[in-house]
Amino acid sequence: MKRILVLHGPNLNWLGKREPQVYGKETLEDLNSLINNAAADLDLQVKIFQSNSEGSLIDLIQAEAAWAEGILINPGAYTHYSYALRDALAGVGLPVVEVHLSNVHAREEFRHHSVIAPIAKGQICGFGFTSYLLGLQALVVSPTMIK
Amino acid sequence: MKRILVLHGPNLNWLGKREPQVYGKETLEDLNSLINNAAADLDLQVKIFQSNSEGSLIDLIQAEAAWAEGILINPGAYTHYSYALRDALAGVGLPVVEVHLSNVHAREEFRHHSVIAPIAKGQICGFGFTSYLLGLQALVVSPTMIK
Amino acid sequence: MKRILVLHGPNLNWLGKREPQVYGKETLEDLNSLINNAAADLDLQVKIFQSNSEGSLIDLIQAEAAWAEGILINPGAYTHYSYALRDALAGVGLPVVEVHLSNVHAREEFRHHSVIAPIAKGQICGFGFTSYLLGLQALVVSPTMIK
Amino acid sequence: MKRILVLHGPNLNWLGKREPQVYGKETLEDLNSLINNAAADLDLQVKIFQSNSEGSLIDLIQAEAAWAEGILINPGAYTHYSYALRDALAGVGLPVVEVHLSNVHAREEFRHHSVIAPIAKGQICGFGFTSYLLGLQALVVSPTMIK
Amino acid sequence: MKRILVLHGPNLNWLGKREPQVYGKETLEDLNSLINNAAADLDLQVKIFQSNSEGSLIDLIQAEAAWAEGILINPGAYTHYSYALRDALAGVGLPVVEVHLSNVHAREEFRHHSVIAPIAKGQICGFGFTSYLLGLQALVVSPTMIK
Amino acid sequence: MKRILVLHGPNLNWLGKREPQVYGKETLEDLNSLINNAAADLDLQVKIFQSNSEGSLIDLIQAEAAWAEGILINPGAYTHYSYALRDALAGVGLPVVEVHLSNVHAREEFRHHSVIAPIAKGQICGFGFTSYLLGLQALVVSPTMIK
Amino acid sequence: MKRILVLHGPNLNWLGKREPQVYGKETLEDLNSLINNAAADLDLQVKIFQSNSEGSLIDLIQAEAAWAEGILINPGAYTHYSYALRDALAGVGLPVVEVHLSNVHAREEFRHHSVIAPIAKGQICGFGFTSYLLGLQALVVSPTMIK
Amino acid sequence: MKRILVLHGPNLNWLGKREPQVYGKETLEDLNSLINNAAADLDLQVKIFQSNSEGSLIDLIQAEAAWAEGILINPGAYTHYSYALRDALAGVGLPVVEVHLSNVHAREEFRHHSVIAPIAKGQICGFGFTSYLLGLQALVVSPTMIK
Amino acid sequence: MKRILVLHGPNLNWLGKREPQVYGKETLEDLNSLINNAAADLDLQVKIFQSNSEGSLIDLIQAEAAWAEGILINPGAYTHYSYALRDALAGVGLPVVEVHLSNVHAREEFRHHSVIAPIAKGQICGFGFTSYLLGLQALVVSPTMIK
Amino acid sequence: MKRILVLHGPNLNWLGKREPQVYGKETLEDLNSLINNAAADLDLQVKIFQSNSEGSLIDLIQAEAAWAEGILINPGAYTHYSYALRDALAGVGLPVVEVHLSNVHAREEFRHHSVIAPIAKGQICGFGFTSYLLGLQALVVSPTMIK
Amino acid sequence: MKRILVLHGPNLNWLGKREPQVYGKETLEDLNSLINNAAADLDLQVKIFQSNSEGSLIDLIQAEAAWAEGILINPGAYTHYSYALRDALAGVGLPVVEVHLSNVHAREEFRHHSVIAPIAKGQICGFGFTSYLLGLQALVVSPTMIK
Amino acid sequence: MKRILVLHGPNLNWLGKREPQVYGKETLEDLNSLINNAAADLDLQVKIFQSNSEGSLIDLIQAEAAWAEGILINPGAYTHYSYALRDALAGVGLPVVEVHLSNVHAREEFRHHSVIAPIAKGQICGFGFTSYLLGLQALVVSPTMIK
Repeated sequence: MKRILVLHGPNLNWLGKREPQVYGKETLEDLNSLINNAAADLDLQVKIFQSNSEGSLIDLIQAEAAWAEGILINPGAYTHYSYALRDALAGVGLPVVEVHLSNVHAREEFRHHSVIAPIAKGQICGFGFTSYLLGLQALVVSPTMIK
Repeated sequence: MKRILVLHGPNLNWLGKREPQVYGKETLEDLNSLINNAAADLDLQVKIFQSNSEGSLIDLIQAEAAWAEGILINPGAYTHYSYALRDALAGVGLPVVEVHLSNVHAREEFRHHSVIAPIAKGQICGFGFTSYLLGLQALVVSPTMIK
Repeated sequence: MKRILVLHGPNLNWLGKREPQVYGKETLEDLNSLINNAAADLDLQVKIFQSNSEGSLIDLIQAEAAWAEGILINPGAYTHYSYALRDALAGVGLPVVEVHLSNVHAREEFRHHSVIAPIAKGQICGFGFTSYLLGLQALVVSPTMIK
Repeated sequence: MKRILVLHGPNLNWLGKREPQVYGKETLEDLNSLINNAAADLDLQVKIFQSNSEGSLIDLIQAEAAWAEGILINPGAYTHYSYALRDALAGVGLPVVEVHLSNVHAREEFRHHSVIAPIAKGQICGFGFTSYLLGLQALVVSPTMIK
Repeated sequence: MKRILVLHGPNLNWLGKREPQVYGKETLEDLNSLINNAAADLDLQVKIFQSNSEGSLIDLIQAEAAWAEGILINPGAYTHYSYALRDALAGVGLPVVEVHLSNVHAREEFRHHSVIAPIAKGQICGFGFTSYLLGLQALVVSPTMIK
Repeated sequence: MKRILVLHGPNLNWLGKREPQVYGKETLEDLNSLINNAAADLDLQVKIFQSNSEGSLIDLIQAEAAWAEGILINPGAYTHYSYALRDALAGVGLPVVEVHLSNVHAREEFRHHSVIAPIAKGQICGFGFTSYLLGLQALVVSPTMIK
Repeated sequence: MKRILVLHGPNLNWLGKREPQVYGKETLEDLNSLINNAAADLDLQVKIFQSNSEGSLIDLIQAEAAWAEGILINPGAYTHYSYALRDALAGVGLPVVEVHLSNVHAREEFRHHSVIAPIAKGQICGFGFTSYLLGLQALVVSPTMIK
Repeated sequence: MKRILVLHGPNLNWLGKREPQVYGKETLEDLNSLINNAAADLDLQVKIFQSNSEGSLIDLIQAEAAWAEGILINPGAYTHYSYALRDALAGVGLPVVEVHLSNVHAREEFRHHSVIAPIAKGQICGFGFTSYLLGLQALVVSPTMIK
Repeated sequence: MKRILVLHGPNLNWLGKREPQVYGKETLEDLNSLINNAAADLDLQVKIFQSNSEGSLIDLIQAEAAWAEGILINPGAYTHYSYALRDALAGVGLPVVEVHLSNVHAREEFRHHSVIAPIAKGQICGFGFTSYLLGLQALVVSPTMIK
Repeated sequence: MKRILVLHGPNLNWLGKREPQVYGKETLEDLNSLINNAAADLDLQVKIFQSNSEGSLIDLIQAEAAWAEGILINPGAYTHYSYALRDALAGVGLPVVEVHLSNVHAREEFRHHSVIAPIAKGQICGFGFTSYLLGLQALVVSPTMIK
Repeated sequence: MKRILVLHGPNLNWLGKREPQVYGKETLEDLNSLINNAAADLDLQVKIFQSNSEGSLIDLIQAEAAWAEGILINPGAYTHYSYALRDALAGVGLPVVEVHLSNVHAREEFRHHSVIAPIAKGQICGFGFTSYLLGLQALVVSPTMIK
Repeated sequence: MKRILVLHGPNLNWLGKREPQVYGKETLEDLNSLINNAAADLDLQVKIFQSNSEGSLIDLIQAEAAWAEGILINPGAYTHYSYALRDALAGVGLPVVEVHLSNVHAREEFRHHSVIAPIAKGQICGFGFTSYLLGLQALVVSPTMIK
C-alpha cells in the first residue's frame, strides 16, 4: 500500500483556533506538515483534504477511490451520525482507519459512539496529532484483522 | 518516560489457540517478543504481565505503580465491566493507553463500550499485534490531551 | 399527474461499484434508463438528479417544486436521520414515494427506521431497480390514503 | 413463478366497513377482483384466503407451501407481534412480499415495526389496493436481492 | 456588541410557502426586513445568510467569526442532530442565541431535543418572527449567565 | 392584551441568595422592579406572585384567571414534573409564556425536559432577568403560532 | 342502547379453577348468571361468549357487530398484546368497555399496559364479578367522553 | 362500610371551566350533588373535599382516616407522580378506589401510568361523572380481590 | 407422576421441512416416536398434540388438565409473547417443563426472552430432540425447586 | 456546628400507624424524643419540623437557613421526585444529610433513586430511628468529602 | 466424548448452607457424588472443580482444555456478567452445557440474562441436582445443533 | 452481637495514595486503627481484611461466616456489578451493612446503583472514615427493619 487518502472532517480547519485547551494551538497546516513528513518517512504518497460538508467528504472519497489504496479519516462530529459517510467508506471497499485528536470516550456521552468504526479496520483516539501518525502506520503496517 | 508496564488481561495467554480466525495464530510469546523489540528500539524498559484474574491485575498495577511511568493495557473482556480495574488504573495516576487486537466496534454490541477508556489517555483497536506497538509509541511520544 | 421529480440520495452514484453483492452490478445510468423507459410507458415527464449532499437535495426539491407534481426519492442513508430533508419534502406539499433498493428491514438495526416515511405517501423497499418502477406507478396510479 | 398465494390477515374481511376514512369504502371482494384481474394480466394463478386467526394463517401457509411459488401477504395487526407467523413464512422457504393498505409509518408508533419484514423479500405500504397490485409485480418481476 | 451574524438554517428560505398554517404566510424577505429594522433600532450591524446545507452553515460561521461579535441562529431541523454545527458554533467562541419560529416543544417528539442549546447562551421559541427580534435583544442586552 | 399575571415558582424568592454564581446576586425584589418598569413601558398591568408550593401556584392561576389576559411563568423546578401545574395552565385557557433565568439545556439532564412547554405559547431561557422582559414582550407582541 | 355483546377472553372459562386465591371460587356460569340478572334489571338484551382464541374473538365481534349496540369485554391476557383484537373492536365502531376481575396495575409489570384501552370508552378493574356489573352500567348509562 | 371519604385532586374545582370538550360543562358542585344523591341511595355517609395541593390531600386523608371506612379518590394529575399521596393512602390502610372522568389511556402518554393504582383496590376511568357513581358502588359492594 | 401431556407449538409440524440447517431433517413423527419410546422406558403414559393455534393450545391444556400430572411443552414462537398461554399453564396448576430444540439464546434477540419460563419448573434448550427426552426426565425425576 | 434543622417529610407524622410491619410501632413523638436526647448528648441545638407539603418543607428550609448550620432530612416519598426540594436544599448552601428509616434499596424500584442525594453530604438508610441518630453524628463529626 | 470437565462457580461450595429453601439441604459433596455416579453409568471420566474466583475458573478451563472433550458448567452469578468467562469457554472450542439448580427465569430480573448461553450448546435450569445429570447426558448424547 | 467481620474491597489498600482529593490522605492503616478503637469502645471483636479480588472476598466471607455475627463491608467498585459477592453475603445469612467513603450518588452515574444494597440491612455513604464508625454502630445498635 502506497497511496493514502487523508480526510479531515468538519471544523478541523479550525484547529488551533477552536478550544485550544482541548485540541492544542497548532493549526491544520502544522498537522498536514507532520503527515507529509511521516508519509515521506514511510515512503507513501498522500492526498490530504478537509471539508465541513458531509456531501463533499463523500464526493472526495468517491473521486479518489480509484487512486487511493487506503483511507485515513478523522470524521469529526460526523463520526456520531453520518451513516451516509459510513456507506461511502464501505462502498469504496478500501481499508479505513478512523482517528481522533481527543479521547472521545472521555468527553460528552454522544461522542462515545461511532457509526464509522464498525466498517473501519480500526480506531485510534486521544493522542493529538500523533493519532494521525499512528494511523498512517496502522494502515500500512498492520494486518487486516478478520472481524 | 522510560519505564512502561505492559498488562495483558484475561484469555490473552490463549492467543494463537483461541479463535485464530479472529486473533491470528501467533502466541503471546510472539507478541511479547515484538513488544520487547519495539521497546528496545524506543529505548524503553518494559515489564510484561498476563493474568486472567481481575484482582491480580489490580494487584500488579499497584505493585508496579512506583516503578512504572506509564501503562499499556489490553484489558480483554474486563474492558466492558471492570470498574474495579478502572479505579485501580485511575488510582495510580499514571498515563494509560488501552489497546485491543481486534476492532471491538465491529463485534458484539457488548464489546462497543469500554469502562476503562474514560480514564485512559487514549484507545487503539483493530490492528492485531500492531495495536500494542502503536500503543507504546502513543504512550511515550504523544502529548497528553487535556480532556 | 404528469411531471415527476426523481431523486437519488448519497452513494447511489456508486451503484454497480458499491457492495455489488447487496446492490447488484448495474450502474445508476442503467437504472436511469429503466426509469426513463418506464416514464415513457406511463406517459410521464421525469427529471432525475443524484446528490451526495443533504443540502443539495433540499435545494433540488425546492428548485423543482413548482415544476413537479410528485416526488420519487431514494434518500439513501439520509433516510435514517435527515430531518432537514423530511422538512423540505413536507414543505413543498407534493406527494412523495420513498423507495429503497434493498430490504432495509433485513439489514442493520439503524436502517429499520425512516424519518422520511411518516411524511410520505408510502414506502417500497427490497426489489432492486424494480422498487423505482413500482414507485412510479404508486405515485401516479394509487389513490392518496387518508392517514 | 406462476403460482401465488395471497393472504389477507385479521380484519381485512371488514374492509369497506372498518374505518373507511383510513381504508376506503371498497370491500375485500372488490380487492380480490382487482387481484384476480391483475393476476390474469400477469399470467399468474392465485389462491386468495383471509383469516382473522394467527393459527389458521399458519395452517394455510403450510397447506399451500407445496403448490405456491411465492406469497403475497398483508398480515394486518399480526405484522407487529406474530413471530409464529414469521416462523411459518420463513419455514416454507418461499419468497414473501409484505403489503399494507395504509402507510404504517405515518400511524401509531406500534405500527412502525414489522416482525415479518426481516424475513420478507420486501415491503410495500401506503397505496391502498394498489399496494397489492404492486406487490404481485414485485414478487414475479423483481430479482431477489441478496440481503 | 455591535456586529451580529444572523443565520437561517434549512428550509427557512421556504417561509411563506412551507406549511403556512405552522409558519405563517410571510416570507424570509419579510423576516429579514424586520431583522434589519430592529438592528437599526438597536444600533447594530447585521449580516444575514440562509443555507440548506450543514457544511455551508459551518463555512459561514467560520468565515464571519472574525467579523461577528455574536450569532443569532435558527438551525431549523439541524437543531436536532447536527453535532458538526454545534462544534462550529462552540469553536468560534462567540455568544450564540438559538431561536425557533414555532414552539418546538409542542410538536413532534424529535423536535423537543436540541443539540445546539447546550452550547448556546439561551434559547427562544414559539413566537414567530418575534422570536428573532427577542433574540437580537437577548444577544446584546442580557448578561452572560454562568452555566 | 393589557393584564398579565407573573408567577415565580419555587426557590425564586431565594434569588441573590441561592447559588449566586448561577443566578446572580440580585434579589427577587430587584427582578420585580424591572418587571414593573417594563410593564409600565409596555402600558401593561401586572400582578406578581411567588410561591414555593405547587398547590398554591395552581390556586393563584385559578384565582386570577378571570382578571388576567396572559400568564408569564417561571415554574422553577416544577417545570420538570408538575403535570398538575400544566393542567392548571391549560385549564384556564390563557396564553402562557415560560421563562427561565438560566439556560436549562446546559445544566443537569433532568432540567432539559419541560412538562409545561407543550401547553405554552413558547419558551425563553438563559438570559437572566432579561428572560422575563423578553417574555413580557413575547406575550403581548408576538402572534399566536398555530401548533 | 339495549343490545350488549359480552365477551370473555382466554382462560376465563377456567374461573373457579384457575388460581382461586386471585380470581375467587365462583365459575364462569356463576358470573354469567349475575350478568344475565343485571341485564334483566337494566332492561338489556345480552349475548355472552367466551373463547380462548384471538381469531375467534375477532370473528365473534364481527358476527355480532350488526346486532350489538355496545361491547363489554374482558380480553384476558390478550389485553396486553392483541393489536388484532384492538383493530377488530375499533373496526366495528361500537362503544367498548374493558373490564378485569383483578387489579391489573397491582400485578406483574406486563399486565399494567393495555393495547385495548386506548380505543375503549373506559376501563374498570379490580372488583371481581362486580367489574362486569359496573361495566354494564358504564356502557348504557354514562355519556361518551370526547377524547 | 358506611362512611366514605371522597377526594377530588388538583384542577377538579375547575370542572365546567377547564377544557369543556374533555370534561363537560357541569361543575364540581353538580358532581358533588350527584355523589350525595347516590350516597343517599346507597345509605352511605360521605365527606367530600377538593384540593389543588398534594400536601393538603395527604393531610385530609390522615385527618379523616379514623372516621372513614373507604376512600374514593380522583387524584387528577397527581395520579402520575405523587408517591407521597400513594404512601398516605397505603398508610391509612383503608380500601381505595381510584376514578377518572376521562379515559386516561386514550390521552397523552404520561397519563397512561398511575402510581396510585398499585395500592388501590381498583380503578375506573372514562365515564365522566358516572365514574364516581360506579366507584362508590365498587367500594361498598365488591369483594376485596386478593392481589 | 405417570401421565404427561406433551405439547408442540406452532410450526413444529413442519419439522424436517423448516430450515433443516437449524432443526435437522427428522420429522415430528420421528420425534414423537422417540418420545413414546422414552415414555415407555420411564413407565409413563403420554398424550402428544401439536397445534399452530394459540387458542387451541390453551383449549388442549384445559381439556387434559384433569388427566395430566405434568406438562412438557415446546411453545415455539409463542414462547416470546403468549401471555394467554402462560396464564393457561399457570391456571391448571401442573408442573410444566419448557423445552426448545435450538439454543434460543444464540439466535435473534427476540428469542432470548420467554414469557412462559417464569411459571415453569424449568427450561431446557439447545439439544435437538434430546431436549424433549431430558425434559421428560426433568418432569418426573427432579424435585420441585422452591422459587 | 451546633445548630441543626431536623426535617421529617410526608407521612412521617403517621409513624406507628402506617405499615407498622415496615416502620415499627413507635411514633414520631418517640423518634423526636430520641433525637432530642441524642442532640443533648452531642451538645447540639435542634429544631424539628414535620410537613406533608413539599412547599412547606421548602419554606421551612428557607426560614431556618440563617439559624441552622446543618440539615438532617428524611424527605419521605419526595426523595424520589422533588427537584424543588433539592433546589431549596442546594440553595441554602448548608451541609445536608439524608436519612431513611427503611432500606430504600430493598423496596420498590422507584424508591432506589434519590434526587436529593446528589446534593447531600451523604445518605444513611435502613436502620430505623437509629438512622437519624447516626445522621446527627455524620453531620457534626464527619469531614466534608470533596466530591 | 468421554472426558468431561465439570465446573461449579461462585458460592456453590456453600450448597446446603446457603438459602436452603432455594437450593436444598444437600451439599456440594452430595452433588459431586451424584455426578460421579452418573458419569460411571455413562462410562465417562469427569474432573470436578469449584471456585469462587472468575480468574481461577478461567485458569481451570484453559488448564484442562487439552484433556477435556466437553464442559459442564454452573457459572453461578458469573452467568450474568462475566464476559471473561464467556471468552475463555469460547476460546477453548469445546462444547459447553450451562446448568443452574434453580429456575433463573423465575427469580430476580438480573438472573434472567446469561452472557454465557450464546456461546454454549444449550442451557438447563430449574431441576436442582438433576440439572447436572441432565446436562451430562445433553453433553454426550445430543447432537450439536447448528444454530 | 459481638464479633464483626470488616471487609475492604478493591483499591481501598490504596487509600491515601488514590485520588486524595476524593478520599483524603489518610491510609488504610489509619482507618483500621480508627475501626479497632471504635470496636474497643463498643466492646466488639473485629477481624479486618482487604482484598482486590472478588473471589477472595467471597472466600473470606465464607471462611469467617461461622465466627462472625455481622459484616461491615465497603465493596468498592464491586458494589456496582458483583452479583457473586451479593450471593455470598446473602448466602451466609448474617446482617450486612454497606459503607462508602464518598457520596456515591454525587459521582459518576454507574456509582449510583448498588447490587449489594438490596440484600443488606442498610447503607451509609459520604462521610469518609466516619462512614465505617457509623456502620459499626448501625450493625450492633439498630434494630433489623422488616423489609
